[in-house]
Amino acid sequence: MKVLLIGAAGTLGRSVHQALRERGHEVVTASRSDPALTVDITDPGSIRSMYDRAGAVDAVASTAGSVAWRPLDRLSHQDVMDSLVGKALSQVELVRQGSAHLADGGSFTLITGVLARDPVATGSMASLANGAVESFVRAAAIELPRRQRINAVSPTVFVESLADYGDLFAGFEPVPVRRAAGAYIRSIEGRQTGQVYMVG
Amino acid sequence: MKVLLIGAAGTLGRSVHQALRERGHEVVTASRSDPALTVDITDPGSIRSMYDRAGAVDAVASTAGSVAWRPLDRLSHQDVMDSLVGKALSQVELVRQGSAHLADGGSFTLITGVLARDPVATGSMASLANGAVESFVRAAAIELPRRQRINAVSPTVFVESLADYGDLFAGFEPVPVRRAAGAYIRSIEGRQTGQVYMVG
Ligand SMILES: NC(=O)c1ccc[n+]([C@@H]2O[C@H](COP(=O)([O-])OP(=O)(O)OC[C@H]3O[C@@H](n4cnc5c(N)ncnc54)[C@H](OP(=O)(O)O)[C@@H]3O)[C@@H](O)[C@H]2O)c1
Ligand SMILES: NC(=O)c1ccc[n+]([C@@H]2O[C@H](COP(=O)([O-])OP(=O)(O)OC[C@H]3O[C@@H](n4cnc5c(N)ncnc54)[C@H](OP(=O)(O)O)[C@@H]3O)[C@@H](O)[C@H]2O)c1
Repeated sequence: MKVLLIGAAGTLGRSVHQALRERGHEVVTASRSDPALTVDITDPGSIRSMYDRAGAVDAVASTAGSVAWRPLDRLSHQDVMDSLVGKALSQVELVRQGSAHLADGGSFTLITGVLARDPVATGSMASLANGAVESFVRAAAIELPRRQRINAVSPTVFVESLADYGDLFAGFEPVPVRRAAGAYIRSIEGRQTGQVYMVG
Repeated sequence: MKVLLIGAAGTLGRSVHQALRERGHEVVTASRSDPALTVDITDPGSIRSMYDRAGAVDAVASTAGSVAWRPLDRLSHQDVMDSLVGKALSQVELVRQGSAHLADGGSFTLITGVLARDPVATGSMASLANGAVESFVRAAAIELPRRQRINAVSPTVFVESLADYGDLFAGFEPVPVRRAAGAYIRSIEGRQTGQVYMVG
């Protein structure tokens, strides 16, 4: 299959890229700094141009998205807006525009995370955005045309990212990022839709 | 208790208002068209002015919020933005600003709905916003200061609203709106926090 992978340079994106190659898929990578396909998913015009350049695809996999990490009492209104735009509106836009470019039976796989269900301090904006995307995935699944499918991957913290998050996830059992990559393979090669694959 | 009720003129708001009065609470009502306290919760400046005029409160209850109802393939980018602003960003802003005006141990009660978990056609934006608010509530609960609490009420369709939604909720068992009002009383008078009260 031809898979468009957004956020391919990140911790998760690199692992998904490798898993897709191992399964013999053709991968088209994209991100803000990707020389192959430059895209900022917070900008609908940039997404349009990405899809035009990518051509028809069999799967769209998103491993991008950013939110504000800040104590609740120090969040600005702009932080809340940026977080909704950075991870929820942006991924919805990948679906809204992408459906026309996606093959019959093709799939969207979006990224969320454990904070949708289990919060940590300073993570309320990640919770907000993840919860939005998980409920959207269930809803979009019943409306997408041409047997197109959509799932979310909702991992706990990665072993590879523990150092970045310090003690925030104390007591959480981290997972190797390749387990999350496995959930992308399930979503892309499987037949399910409207699922939230919890990893960890 | 002194309860600030936003959206008091709506189907749900009227029922919550009545339940609060029956329990002997003092209710300050607000909405875009409320002569007592005019507020548009999509406008942070308007929320600021509402809180300044309302003074200190023991509970904030939101029964407002609006989203786009449209088939997935006819949603515009602006519809997605309006829905996130209309029900998620707006209710987060009630909490973000409201904490400073809320008593020790006081509560926020926000509105979501069944579409967070069970989708219906044309309802993907309601799902998106509801999912955001439900995950945010769980997260904000662990960060609010001074024993302040926060819960969401997540009802299925109301008997009183069936005519408005036509066949969209075919087969769903509707609940009388007063059952949702009961969940607001539980949230306000009870001691729980971080809960999503499913009604129906
Ligand atoms: N790390 C974890 O432990 C963990 C656990 C659960 C969930 N997650 C979620 O998984 C996702 C990826 O996490 P990660 O740790 O792999 O992040 P990362 O290492 O920072 O990588 C993010 C990737 O997304 C791209 N990107 C970011 N914003 C973008 C935008 N607006 N437009 C286009 N591309 C964008 C980045 O590349 P450019 O800078 O070139 O754009 C980069 O390739 C995040 O949504 C995160 O919340 C992570
Ligand atoms: N109806 C149902 O069956 C059902 C089921 C589950 C969940 N819900 C949710 O419950 C909530 C209320 O539903 P409802 O049926 O009671 O709605 P409704 O009858 O239309 O009432 C909405 C109320 O909120 C106010 N409002 C709307 N937007 C506002 C804004 N931007 N700023 C301030 N006030 C605003 C309205 O007054 P003004 O016009 O004066 O501002 C009105 O008082 C919605 O979020 C809905 O999704 C409803």
